[in-house]
Amino acid sequence: MAAPAMPVAPAAPADTVAWDIVSGLTTEIGQRLAGSEAEARARAWGSQKLQALGFRNVKVEPFTIRGYQRGVDKARITSPVPQMLAVTALGYSGATPDKGIEGELVYFPTLAALKAAPAGSLAGKIAFIDHAMRAAQDGSGYGPYGQVRREGPTVAAQKGALAVVIRSVGTDSHRNPHTGVTSWGAGVKPIPAGAVSNPDADLIGRLAKLGKPVTIALTLTGKTVEGLPSGNVVGDLPGRDPSLPPVLVGCHLDSWDLGTGAIDDASGCAIVTAAALRAQAAGQTLRTIRVLWAGSEELGGFGGEAYAKAHAEPHALAMESDFGADRVWRVQTRFAPADKPLADSIVAALGTMGIVAGRGTAGGGTDVEPVIAAQKLAVVDMGQDGTHYFDLHHTPDDTLDKIDPAALEQNVAAWTQVLEIVANAPAIASVNPPE
Amino acid sequence: MAAPAMPVAPAAPADTVAWDIVSGLTTEIGQRLAGSEAEARARAWGSQKLQALGFRNVKVEPFTIRGYQRGVDKARITSPVPQMLAVTALGYSGATPDKGIEGELVYFPTLAALKAAPAGSLAGKIAFIDHAMRAAQDGSGYGPYGQVRREGPTVAAQKGALAVVIRSVGTDSHRNPHTGVTSWGAGVKPIPAGAVSNPDADLIGRLAKLGKPVTIALTLTGKTVEGLPSGNVVGDLPGRDPSLPPVLVGCHLDSWDLGTGAIDDASGCAIVTAAALRAQAAGQTLRTIRVLWAGSEELGGFGGEAYAKAHAEPHALAMESDFGADRVWRVQTRFAPADKPLADSIVAALGTMGIVAGRGTAGGGTDVEPVIAAQKLAVVDMGQDGTHYFDLHHTPDDTLDKIDPAALEQNVAAWTQVLEIVANAPAIASVNPPE
Repeated sequence: MAAPAMPVAPAAPADTVAWDIVSGLTTEIGQRLAGSEAEARARAWGSQKLQALGFRNVKVEPFTIRGYQRGVDKARITSPVPQMLAVTALGYSGATPDKGIEGELVYFPTLAALKAAPAGSLAGKIAFIDHAMRAAQDGSGYGPYGQVRREGPTVAAQKGALAVVIRSVGTDSHRNPHTGVTSWGAGVKPIPAGAVSNPDADLIGRLAKLGKPVTIALTLTGKTVEGLPSGNVVGDLPGRDPSLPPVLVGCHLDSWDLGTGAIDDASGCAIVTAAALRAQAAGQTLRTIRVLWAGSEELGGFGGEAYAKAHAEPHALAMESDFGADRVWRVQTRFAPADKPLADSIVAALGTMGIVAGRGTAGGGTDVEPVIAAQKLAVVDMGQDGTHYFDLHHTPDDTLDKIDPAALEQNVAAWTQVLEIVANAPAIASVNPPE
Repeated sequence: MAAPAMPVAPAAPADTVAWDIVSGLTTEIGQRLAGSEAEARARAWGSQKLQALGFRNVKVEPFTIRGYQRGVDKARITSPVPQMLAVTALGYSGATPDKGIEGELVYFPTLAALKAAPAGSLAGKIAFIDHAMRAAQDGSGYGPYGQVRREGPTVAAQKGALAVVIRSVGTDSHRNPHTGVTSWGAGVKPIPAGAVSNPDADLIGRLAKLGKPVTIALTLTGKTVEGLPSGNVVGDLPGRDPSLPPVLVGCHLDSWDLGTGAIDDASGCAIVTAAALRAQAAGQTLRTIRVLWAGSEELGGFGGEAYAKAHAEPHALAMESDFGADRVWRVQTRFAPADKPLADSIVAALGTMGIVAGRGTAGGGTDVEPVIAAQKLAVVDMGQDGTHYFDLHHTPDDTLDKIDPAALEQNVAAWTQVLEIVANAPAIASVNPPE
């Protein structure tokens, strides 16, 4: 039996655009917390970089945000035995006094257990939510486990807790806690809210089982600050027909402040930018390809909202890269029924690289969802392997050494294939998003 | 062809002694820095534990040490761009003022390059030694790479450096620096000496290549303190013939302070203690088995020296476990020529577990080497797999979750086999150590 013929993917021209962007952003800028002076330097760096790469109409589009400025983060067990804890404040945490607070820890194995605690039962105490995340290739654990971080602090505050500490929303076993934003329910006064690393959460769990009261001292002095400057960086690679709406490819420029934002999301900006250029390497595409390096994604998607508001002009389709730098293993799309041939050609092209078609529907991502919703845009989601993403996400460990250059190149090659198809499509219909 | 018959290792009785020790020390004590109040609590815990397990003549044998008390450890790049660094002081580091120091960094790829720098060329500057360790199964990299930490600070001080920062002596890629002791040459005034994590060292290397001056701000306020209390914990499982010299099995009770000393060296104490008990499970051994949980190993082997000084009575043989909790893969011995049959029976017994005989000669380890040298003792080295040991060694990541219970049990089973042989040997000759 003859082996089935394997179509050969088009040869990709070798270039270092993607690596130069991840290396440059992490080395020459480093952390780029939303609203910070470092994020402003990153915008200047990004603007200069896009111009140097030949993008046109490169603009910084400013907006302001409610920001979070980290202070001192410290935690330790004070009873039954002294033990140091590796802790980080969550974004928008309430602040402790400079000298910290101390309280008895109340142990909850899950968010559901915390929700079941009687009203007022946490008065003067520190709630601990010990809900260990499991890794998944498609990142699907971030929905339910991430809820501990997003909703847990509000639930603890509503039950009178002095403060709340969670097990990091992460899948590694290092003493590097995972930060991330929490949100406070309407009328809820923020309380200090932190996350400890997985090994520290394990320790707290073992101490809780000893049957003696566990007390914890917590210092989290960061502050929520209104009206901080942020902004998007936008640039175009003009197409042959400027009357056709552009294809938008997004990523985010800001990062959490504990690491240097290599996989979250310098790699996303590297991938979309390098692929946009490479899609034009064989000749100018029909449509303009626009890159959006969004600001302030981490604190709540401010950049994506600002872009949609500032850009009411029609777009053809949107895509985003914001899930690390590991290989694309799956593609999902959302096209109008009339554009099924377009969807099929994308699946066929990526199939030559071993990328499978998923059964779900594409959504976009935080930076492009507002414009997708406003304009009912077609979407393509390039599903990256997320098995190890939450080992690094929002930790001090999000650094350049975690990026495999070969995997980064696979992303650029896959994105290039898709951009060559969609940016040369004469018509792309709008599409109603799922209810 | 028939498969060769595989001898069956004796069935080990199931027990939780080893796990209880690693779990107890890391949970109920945590870090046990030499000379600290925590190390004193660990001695009390160990003494109680050995008595509860049936050891006799359990004693705490006190001594005093030159200790190191950690202060504030902070470092950041101040130019060409601000970047935070994950840093730890080395043991016996000189102290900076509380407000820290700042200086231009001088980059050295290796210790040899630092040694080649002209005298006085580092005046007012901060030396950086960027020598990346490679992993090795037998841990042999710790000799040459560890020299950067042991000797580098003295060399930098001798050339006039304001301070010295090294790439961690470690093989991981996490933002957790590796501490460890340095030593100062005769007449050398200590300067502040720290280690940054591997990703931070990578970053410094990239910044150094940008061609602009790199400046670093460093705060390391720890202090060297004389006369701190420490001590060994010693206990016996008496043999049938009390007139025969005992077999000594050692480990160390102290740990570095960044983690909780799970693999360095709670696991060693767990292995030797559980194996000593299990070797007597089938009936009392001929010789006494003595366990030594040594204090203050990390700061320079104080416990082993104190033991040798306090115990001039004859010993038969010594062994130590201080290389983590991964599986034993190799055994090496040092016996007098007349005891070759004893060495052969150990190799044969361990061969049934897939453990190979190494070509080198056994040395013992820091906690037992002084008594080995003083009494010319026979030695057996149980070589653990060290491929991942220096991912964790002396870092915040040395925590209980890193221990695989099955690997820990394999250690106990292998040690039990050896102790059953040597503690039942009627005669063990003294042996001249190699020149």
